[in-house]
Amino acid sequence: MSKVDEFNQYREKLNEIILLKGNKITKRFFNLDTNTYQDGALTSKTKELLGLVASLVLRCNDCINYHILQCHKLGVTEAEFYETFNVGLIVGGSIVIPHLRRAVEILEELVQQE
Amino acid sequence: MSKVDEFNQYREKLNEIILLKGNKITKRFFNLDTNTYQDGALTSKTKELLGLVASLVLRCNDCINYHILQCHKLGVTEAEFYETFNVGLIVGGSIVIPHLRRAVEILEELVQQE
Amino acid sequence: MSKVDEFNQYREKLNEIILLKGNKITKRFFNLDTNTYQDGALTSKTKELLGLVASLVLRCNDCINYHILQCHKLGVTEAEFYETFNVGLIVGGSIVIPHLRRAVEILEELVQQE
Amino acid sequence: MSKVDEFNQYREKLNEIILLKGNKITKRFFNLDTNTYQDGALTSKTKELLGLVASLVLRCNDCINYHILQCHKLGVTEAEFYETFNVGLIVGGSIVIPHLRRAVEILEELVQQE
Amino acid sequence: MSKVDEFNQYREKLNEIILLKGNKITKRFFNLDTNTYQDGALTSKTKELLGLVASLVLRCNDCINYHILQCHKLGVTEAEFYETFNVGLIVGGSIVIPHLRRAVEILEELVQQE
Amino acid sequence: MSKVDEFNQYREKLNEIILLKGNKITKRFFNLDTNTYQDGALTSKTKELLGLVASLVLRCNDCINYHILQCHKLGVTEAEFYETFNVGLIVGGSIVIPHLRRAVEILEELVQQE
Repeated sequence: MSKVDEFNQYREKLNEIILLKGNKITKRFFNLDTNTYQDGALTSKTKELLGLVASLVLRCNDCINYHILQCHKLGVTEAEFYETFNVGLIVGGSIVIPHLRRAVEILEELVQQE
Repeated sequence: MSKVDEFNQYREKLNEIILLKGNKITKRFFNLDTNTYQDGALTSKTKELLGLVASLVLRCNDCINYHILQCHKLGVTEAEFYETFNVGLIVGGSIVIPHLRRAVEILEELVQQE
Repeated sequence: MSKVDEFNQYREKLNEIILLKGNKITKRFFNLDTNTYQDGALTSKTKELLGLVASLVLRCNDCINYHILQCHKLGVTEAEFYETFNVGLIVGGSIVIPHLRRAVEILEELVQQE
Repeated sequence: MSKVDEFNQYREKLNEIILLKGNKITKRFFNLDTNTYQDGALTSKTKELLGLVASLVLRCNDCINYHILQCHKLGVTEAEFYETFNVGLIVGGSIVIPHLRRAVEILEELVQQE
Repeated sequence: MSKVDEFNQYREKLNEIILLKGNKITKRFFNLDTNTYQDGALTSKTKELLGLVASLVLRCNDCINYHILQCHKLGVTEAEFYETFNVGLIVGGSIVIPHLRRAVEILEELVQQE
Repeated sequence: MSKVDEFNQYREKLNEIILLKGNKITKRFFNLDTNTYQDGALTSKTKELLGLVASLVLRCNDCINYHILQCHKLGVTEAEFYETFNVGLIVGGSIVIPHLRRAVEILEELVQQE
């Protein structure tokens, strides 16, 4: 199974349990999280790039995966991805590099599926 | 092998090496770590919940596993777990969600073993 | 002016601007944040202690101040405060110490006002 | 003196010493840091917003100040600022709020100087 | 395959793609990163220990692996490794322990290959 | 009052309260913290440099102050300080720069007192 499919399946399965068993606060937060990235004064694409760079500097592989998938759907180009990676790298330092490797692994998979 | 067993075996095996090869400082710190969660002005259960929320916001899967196991032994209910998860989620933000998924995966395993 | 008053005044003044100028997402998040600490399966007191330890390990002085004030209102004793500080210290390490000093400074002010 | 002027003066004075006494690595890193935010596949404005959200979730007041000043020079509107703040808030959680207060304090100063 | 070989192969494969597809900023940062650890006023060995402790407290398993491999090549002894681990443990707290376990796992592999 | 004196006085005053009111765990941790930096397989000087770089990447101004003072007492030269700063800067990224400015401010004060 591809890394993208594996990530998506695990994410969906567990989110389902969380939303089933979680209480009102949990559900409202998940809802807010989704709404944050919708078109507004800034486009959804810009907001997903913001989500991606935040995930890079906080070094969360699953969050990076998620925002790369969203950015890819919204037409972010390879050049735009790498410039976003640079901001993450320069702000967050070499500690970001292992997460950049995972990011690039997912991105390569998406590019090859095109 | 269950995720719980896998975690426990790896943890025990490596802790053994650390305590064998580590020096006095290492051993004393491991000892302090254990003593921190014992009954006192606050119950051991409350302290394990404190350890769990600290692990959630610092986003350490193994630490989350460990404190979920301890909390479960001490009788923390599902409703209490999810309210603790909420504090972690609200304080730590959406970056905590991937770690919440791992937490819930372990918790489900424990609940099903009951 | 006391440290507690200074903190409360600054916090209220700026929160007012944020809630005035912020959009729906901002307001909903602030609302969720308040609701998270209300009585439920866990008491409000336990949840405020969870908020305090999360703030300690994430090393946020203003968040520590806020949760110390809330805990103090809910009757947390000095012994309970110091046991919570210990969890923060052991989980988060010596890097937490400077924040513990600020915590204790605020706590001393509250104790002396009693 | 305004918070903006105070920040700028301190920053310039200390950066001068760092670049005088630092070695090649230090200078090259400072240079790279500046170049990262120049127009490319993404505009300088988008990159400064990326820098701002990264600073918010990493909770660095001085970095937030710096990127707010840069964004403001590049014409970022109040609505765009608050949507960027939301991404920082949702990704990073309530621990970001004290830094959001400092951000809004600086932003208010800039808006009032217009 | 050993953990060391697995890490090295993955790292080399992905770094190659990053340096092929990345732009000037990416390449210059990777270059700076390498130069930072060369002999100077401090020896390369001391700098690799600095890199190791930084990786421990920032809790990045791949970075820890990398610096353990470099330190081992430069003749760092087991006693020196464990004293460095202690600094990481005391500064960073019990949250570092799971990463210490991974560190010790790699170190054991290297020691057994000698 | 100099920044160094201000830091030392505040630190001593509050540590005294913590050690007076804290329990056994608190005291033992403070004790362990002191012992960690004593001469062993690595010299005290190397360990203080490790403490400094850990404080830089974790971005704790007070911890940076403390380790700069200790390093200075142990004869760390300006060139050695700046090479240590570089490791912190490259590992931790531009987010470290504001903390580097505080570090350099303290270091300048120490150098001018010589």
